[in-house]
Amino acid sequence: MKRILIIVLATATVLCAFGADVVTSPDGRLAATISIINGHPCYSLTIDGTEVVRPSRLGLRLADGTLGADVKVAARHRDSRDEQWVQPWGEDDTVRNHYNELALDLRERGNGRLLRVVMRVYDDGLGFRYEIPKQAALGEFQIMDELTEVRLAHDAPAWSIPSNRTEYFEGLYERTPLTAKDTVCVPLTVEYEPDLFLALHEANLTDYASLNLTPRRQADGSVTLLAALTPWQSGVKVESRSGMATPWRTITVARTAGHLLLSRLTLNLNEPCRIEDTSWIEPGRYLGIWWSIHKKQNTWEMGATHGATTENVKRYIDFAARHGFAGVLAEGWNPGWAAGEQVTYLKAYPDFDIEAVCRYALDKGVRFIGHMESWGNAALIEREMDDAFAWYSQMGIRAVKTGYVGHLLDGKELAKSQYGIRHYRRVIECAARHHIMIDNHEPAMPTGLQRTWPNLMTQEGVRGQEYNAWSGDGGNPPSHTVTLPFTRGLAGPMDFTPAIFWQGDDVVPGTHPHSTLAKQLGEFVVLYSPLQMAADAIEHYQGQPAFTFIESCPTTWSRTVVPHARIGEYVTVARRERGNGGRWFVGSITNERARTLELPLDFLTPGTTYRAMIYADASEADYERDPYAMEIKQLTVTASDTLTLRLARSGGCAIRIEPIHSSR
Amino acid sequence: MKRILIIVLATATVLCAFGADVVTSPDGRLAATISIINGHPCYSLTIDGTEVVRPSRLGLRLADGTLGADVKVAARHRDSRDEQWVQPWGEDDTVRNHYNELALDLRERGNGRLLRVVMRVYDDGLGFRYEIPKQAALGEFQIMDELTEVRLAHDAPAWSIPSNRTEYFEGLYERTPLTAKDTVCVPLTVEYEPDLFLALHEANLTDYASLNLTPRRQADGSVTLLAALTPWQSGVKVESRSGMATPWRTITVARTAGHLLLSRLTLNLNEPCRIEDTSWIEPGRYLGIWWSIHKKQNTWEMGATHGATTENVKRYIDFAARHGFAGVLAEGWNPGWAAGEQVTYLKAYPDFDIEAVCRYALDKGVRFIGHMESWGNAALIEREMDDAFAWYSQMGIRAVKTGYVGHLLDGKELAKSQYGIRHYRRVIECAARHHIMIDNHEPAMPTGLQRTWPNLMTQEGVRGQEYNAWSGDGGNPPSHTVTLPFTRGLAGPMDFTPAIFWQGDDVVPGTHPHSTLAKQLGEFVVLYSPLQMAADAIEHYQGQPAFTFIESCPTTWSRTVVPHARIGEYVTVARRERGNGGRWFVGSITNERARTLELPLDFLTPGTTYRAMIYADASEADYERDPYAMEIKQLTVTASDTLTLRLARSGGCAIRIEPIHSSR
Repeated sequence: MKRILIIVLATATVLCAFGADVVTSPDGRLAATISIINGHPCYSLTIDGTEVVRPSRLGLRLADGTLGADVKVAARHRDSRDEQWVQPWGEDDTVRNHYNELALDLRERGNGRLLRVVMRVYDDGLGFRYEIPKQAALGEFQIMDELTEVRLAHDAPAWSIPSNRTEYFEGLYERTPLTAKDTVCVPLTVEYEPDLFLALHEANLTDYASLNLTPRRQADGSVTLLAALTPWQSGVKVESRSGMATPWRTITVARTAGHLLLSRLTLNLNEPCRIEDTSWIEPGRYLGIWWSIHKKQNTWEMGATHGATTENVKRYIDFAARHGFAGVLAEGWNPGWAAGEQVTYLKAYPDFDIEAVCRYALDKGVRFIGHMESWGNAALIEREMDDAFAWYSQMGIRAVKTGYVGHLLDGKELAKSQYGIRHYRRVIECAARHHIMIDNHEPAMPTGLQRTWPNLMTQEGVRGQEYNAWSGDGGNPPSHTVTLPFTRGLAGPMDFTPAIFWQGDDVVPGTHPHSTLAKQLGEFVVLYSPLQMAADAIEHYQGQPAFTFIESCPTTWSRTVVPHARIGEYVTVARRERGNGGRWFVGSITNERARTLELPLDFLTPGTTYRAMIYADASEADYERDPYAMEIKQLTVTASDTLTLRLARSGGCAIRIEPIHSSR
Repeated sequence: MKRILIIVLATATVLCAFGADVVTSPDGRLAATISIINGHPCYSLTIDGTEVVRPSRLGLRLADGTLGADVKVAARHRDSRDEQWVQPWGEDDTVRNHYNELALDLRERGNGRLLRVVMRVYDDGLGFRYEIPKQAALGEFQIMDELTEVRLAHDAPAWSIPSNRTEYFEGLYERTPLTAKDTVCVPLTVEYEPDLFLALHEANLTDYASLNLTPRRQADGSVTLLAALTPWQSGVKVESRSGMATPWRTITVARTAGHLLLSRLTLNLNEPCRIEDTSWIEPGRYLGIWWSIHKKQNTWEMGATHGATTENVKRYIDFAARHGFAGVLAEGWNPGWAAGEQVTYLKAYPDFDIEAVCRYALDKGVRFIGHMESWGNAALIEREMDDAFAWYSQMGIRAVKTGYVGHLLDGKELAKSQYGIRHYRRVIECAARHHIMIDNHEPAMPTGLQRTWPNLMTQEGVRGQEYNAWSGDGGNPPSHTVTLPFTRGLAGPMDFTPAIFWQGDDVVPGTHPHSTLAKQLGEFVVLYSPLQMAADAIEHYQGQPAFTFIESCPTTWSRTVVPHARIGEYVTVARRERGNGGRWFVGSITNERARTLELPLDFLTPGTTYRAMIYADASEADYERDPYAMEIKQLTVTASDTLTLRLARSGGCAIRIEPIHSSR
């Protein structure tokens, strides 16, 4: 019945959109239509002939009135492209950028202002944006609102977090009907039909305000998702001038949840790399003095249990060198952590000889990782970053973790406002000049900028492992990490900091990951970050059999596949390492339900014989009763084999598969 | 019935041994009697009142007739001692030397020559030897035979290898009745009663011929084990002069097989340490280019697949440094391996820069281990050793593996003859002067000399792992390593070279250890050697979870206990590391039968909480079907807990138990 109704509506649309402009995906399955309805630009989307996005309003409300009301099509531009581009790091080595584009120049009948709508349609979704060409009729302006809508033909279950001003996107993604929510953050993941998943997001957020969406149920049962831009304190959303383009508004389309993870739409809608020589950009695993602080065994500030002391960090560096880690982070290395201390990134605490430590690290093939916590003081970072990055770089530091704990930047503006977006970009560009990679905490939601600035490695903006170190709300539930890849993960790399091995209730009773040890291993593969932290204290890795998986696991890949995926229930990801090794690493994790999964190894190279090292939950493993029990198997396998994975409650499995080249 | 018979015989003995001299063990349970029977000196032994050794002949046959025929007791000396001495390395840190001694001066009625018999009785056995004091009536002499007997009151099952001139003690110890064998080597292990185990051996073999024993059934059902010394080619057994003492002939007595492993009788009957400063003697784990040669993936001689190249050995050193190994061996580093090559220990093959490699190793806290294979050319070793050891020592080498492949030393004498015994000792003493530790392959059977020369670390004289690399006779059966501790192992440390992880039939099909991976771990604890080789190629350890046990396992101990022991069936050994760590390492292994063992942890310190890391056979593990399947558990345990160990067919278990000191 519903399907029939949709077809009727679809027909209706086509009629009322007489003379409409259509652009289809290269495979012809997606068709986007731009039409002028009662003088207003609208767009709609059909997938395999079914209207999924009903005619939805386009346009902007400026301080002096709507831009894009009562328009006519002044010109049409069509373009198509099919190209491959290479990622310096990532989940695949090359990305295909294959789309058809339609750009409409819309001229206002009244004051003759020009608004361009650009629509790109890919096989895996679409993106559109507004361009406001330089024009006499329009100089500087303020965007007060976007009129942009996504009008889905019917309500559906979706995963989202509220557009909360205070949580840095660190909420738990809940599954609810779209219309059960008020304004939510993007990405917004929709199970539109059992076999049709949508992800609504934005790409290339540059000098603009972050997007949010406000769902409204319409009388006809459709659901309008209205753009809600993040404001300045003044209420203005965006300060701009003609000769600009907005970020892309994107709808990723996938027939299975797993295919959402394989879409590179967001990256494709960002600009090509602006860094000519990327050889200094080094993805890798890192360790750090971090978990021990969250577990209250060390302190950020100086004192008897100060974590970032010369001796303690050298201990971490020794361990990192022995186990092939690229970097060591030490939070609390610089003044500013004790009450009343002046924050600075230009000198270290007296008990931390940073120059000696950096030399010591370099001698062992490890790099110290800098840390700049600002407590929201973006101005301080901007004041010191040029000197700080120069100093760090000269000491051999290649990566810096930035932080913005605090609800407003500089005590006034939201991190995800245009103010914050401008700040974060300045940091990335300054870091690039100094050959510094950025791991940004308390960020705006990522939008694929790492294509343009591949020194933007990873970001937080995710409810991470540290919630398992705080008794507060009992930590992260078992379903959390099987939800993240399909929600926050679609926005870009997450510095979730997995691999907590020891669940002892040391200082803060009852606080530990709610998962088995094998699941901690699986998360190391499933939750993608090019700088991937093994987050536990090194004492808890020493002599641990399971650590042999972590220390062998790469953080950049030539190919990724997703054999199993049910949002919030379980997910399996298999990735092939870059280079000639040809090894595959598999992570499989489940929620609070134990389950058995069949894993065909058809992703392996046919005709090659491999040895699989399997780190699995043992029969008695259970995240509440025995999180440590692990069974380790070694099997000789080929592409025609199928493995049976038995996952415990909140359990997992990790597998390393190496080609058997020879006797060695 | 048997027991009654024995008592009758015992009484008889006491009667005929009228005027006999008795010396008892400190606890009074062992009583040795020396008596003169028909002019011949004899000894007997009762244990808890039961005669186990019936009156047995003492004496020597010299070229010019018997020494010790028709004697009378000229003097008696009694002595007692209770002392502790410290081992620089070993299975315990201190050893108690507690005995009662009786020495009888026996004067020949005829030519008045003096023979002294010294009997020392310990709670765990006895030792006796002959002393021939300096005397006018006797200068130089040749010993043609010993008349020494051990006359056991009845036959019994025993484990032994034939006294074969060509096998370097590399046979399989078989369980047979004593009388089913011709001449056998010592140690000879006897299950005299289900609750009474005897081990016959010798201690402090110095400038003398190695002992063998020839069993003969006597008419009364007793079994005489007659000394059979290893001859020179001339037929003479020992060239000597008055003012000498023979090695101790020892009988270790234990109520359980496990207690055989805890007896330090052989060490107590050797001389105290002759090395004043032992600080340079460093027990530890080592790796080496060895298994890959036996598996025919590398060669000893130069060529395309030469193992001991500069680059390849550096690779091993890097791995050793990362994983805390003390040394790296590389066989085939020196000329002499290809046909017609002149053997020398004073220069390296051209593709091996030994000086650079030794420096490289020292920089990383590792030491290169020298190797001197002589193919039986003892004279060559004696010619070059002083220069070679000096050179090695100066390069930082601390350990040298010597080898004597070939059936005769210098083409004429047996390795276990007085000729060989003299040679081996010269090497040990020369090495000590140069601060070199010795790992001697194709040795004479060890007799506890490491107490006097603690630079004699370990020796072969055992059917080792390499038999699993040769297709010849199918390798070592599952019962082999559960037999060795109770046989060859009683003689001293064994360089068995355990821990083969990869069972791939690479180059020599069908050749691999006949055990599970967990058993390979267990053997690393059970088979004691202060220089313990992890024998596999490093490629097979890389990324292996099980290796985390090997890389954490010490090779010298403060205490050893044996919770389970059945010769040829299963054995469990638990050892506490030296120093303050207080960690325990447990190895448990079984023969071809799977079994379940209960392990009470009562050896742990009461009141301390420990974390146990258990490396166990997984349920599907089986040495033939799946040798790799392993289950790893972490448990919190105390001294009052009991662990249930499930061992697969030819399986095992390894456990590391660490005190939980704090949150870390």
